[in-house]
Amino acid sequence: MRMLVVGSVAFDDIQTPFGVKKNVLGGAASHFSIAAATLIEPKIIAVIGHDFPEKYLKYLSGFGIDTAGIERSSDKTFHWSGFYEHDMAVAHTRSTELGAFATFEPKLSEEDKLRQVLFMANIDPVIQYKVLKQMKNAQLVGLDSMNFWIESKKKDLWKVIKEVDILFLNDAEVRMLAGEASLIKAAKAIQKQGPDIVVVKKGEHGVTAISHNHIFVSPAFPTEKVIDPTGAGDSFAGGCMSYLVANSQPGKKISDDLLRRAVAWGSAVASFSVEGFSTSGVAKATKANVEKRVEVLRNLSAF
Amino acid sequence: MRMLVVGSVAFDDIQTPFGVKKNVLGGAASHFSIAAATLIEPKIIAVIGHDFPEKYLKYLSGFGIDTAGIERSSDKTFHWSGFYEHDMAVAHTRSTELGAFATFEPKLSEEDKLRQVLFMANIDPVIQYKVLKQMKNAQLVGLDSMNFWIESKKKDLWKVIKEVDILFLNDAEVRMLAGEASLIKAAKAIQKQGPDIVVVKKGEHGVTAISHNHIFVSPAFPTEKVIDPTGAGDSFAGGCMSYLVANSQPGKKISDDLLRRAVAWGSAVASFSVEGFSTSGVAKATKANVEKRVEVLRNLSAF
Repeated sequence: MRMLVVGSVAFDDIQTPFGVKKNVLGGAASHFSIAAATLIEPKIIAVIGHDFPEKYLKYLSGFGIDTAGIERSSDKTFHWSGFYEHDMAVAHTRSTELGAFATFEPKLSEEDKLRQVLFMANIDPVIQYKVLKQMKNAQLVGLDSMNFWIESKKKDLWKVIKEVDILFLNDAEVRMLAGEASLIKAAKAIQKQGPDIVVVKKGEHGVTAISHNHIFVSPAFPTEKVIDPTGAGDSFAGGCMSYLVANSQPGKKISDDLLRRAVAWGSAVASFSVEGFSTSGVAKATKANVEKRVEVLRNLSAF
Repeated sequence: MRMLVVGSVAFDDIQTPFGVKKNVLGGAASHFSIAAATLIEPKIIAVIGHDFPEKYLKYLSGFGIDTAGIERSSDKTFHWSGFYEHDMAVAHTRSTELGAFATFEPKLSEEDKLRQVLFMANIDPVIQYKVLKQMKNAQLVGLDSMNFWIESKKKDLWKVIKEVDILFLNDAEVRMLAGEASLIKAAKAIQKQGPDIVVVKKGEHGVTAISHNHIFVSPAFPTEKVIDPTGAGDSFAGGCMSYLVANSQPGKKISDDLLRRAVAWGSAVASFSVEGFSTSGVAKATKANVEKRVEVLRNLSAF
């Protein structure tokens, strides 16, 4: 199966206790796709501004990512600026300039429309839905979002969530979306509205994945080297989705066993992501070194 | 091996989204000992006031707990009052009246001094140290504490931590005590000061246990029924310590494998604790139904 990814390709200004970086490559689709490139060659649908350097596109292509669906606009590139405090658990946004994404009208090619897998990385749910509606043969549809859209465009977000197979959100977002304090209850309530699988990202506390009558809890890889958490959630989703795509057949249900292995793969990929600024961490994830961390994860909770 | 437990036996006033209870049985040693009674018969060293009802002592004895070391004072009983908000992740203290514990001078009997296992449940580290210094034959010493003592009596707390084998703290406390944001680094830094094992309690996110060159990450039992989290950490420690006591020999090092099984036992016991107010939840934990939840935990993170 071949995967299409819609989401932001952007500039980030990032401040963590380990340094400050300006105008580095960011965006959910960038992190997601580099993570997915550990196993597959995804194609990105996005828009960039006139100010986006060619070298960043070449850098993405270097991972085997198809960048032909990244439009160039006369507007500016999406630009996020934020910082992390001492514990780095939460990203604090200084500013978000949507730029070219504010008026983005995604148009898929005929080949794009026939892809079997769509992942909608975090972006305006209205844009996500516009892409979803163009797909003619989707077998597996995933979605990520964030608190900003739950607060500002809840109705649009629910419209798209109802049509996805696998939903990725962090624990606070799952509770917020469902209006329920118990994480398990909240995830099950969302699942009833559409997605077969709800994957709850809990940062350093790992992942809880819920499918029908099935719960899987995966610890995070125990790293001591957290330099920049930006994009870790996207990298996790990219790793997880790429494993599902690489190991399942069209039309076949995702087994609980496959889901567990996919979540572990995503967790291992994400552990590389936090070890460097921007995409420099996840760029170091390869099939071989991710496999090693998956084995560490396998033993971490065994007794 | 036989275990002595020093810690508070108290009155609690508790408010959670599920109700309000006043003057119910509380105290770290109470929760700990009922949890430990799933496998062993611990003896409590504590002080209660003139106002403490005989029925609570009988209730503790009913679990096989030895209450002969609980002194009665002419002062009032230790009384904690607190509440939990919607998410119930953090206990908010309304008041803490030390009562009889403010002037408690623990005096162990000759039989007590010869016990091989001591657990110092959360209480003033000066009292903990006074008990520890009376022990003549301790093979295994555990300790729990809280942010209040880290802030107010850090030096006294370090003095006792340096002499223990196994330390229980929650994640925020481990970071606070070590002055280090990375949880793994913080736990390792504390370990270097004395304890062979540092067990980090993370509430709904489970437990991370660190021993020499070994990390074990255990998820929490995925319960949807959280009524009152008071004493869950004490119940976890009680379950964990009782498993170590029931399955190890004097003078023999705790193996990583035994530690993993003990942590799982503690997690399963703690999952009962949150399902009812005061000690009514943990009181329902039996060897047989804890074993069932341990099997759920074993499968929860396997892939």
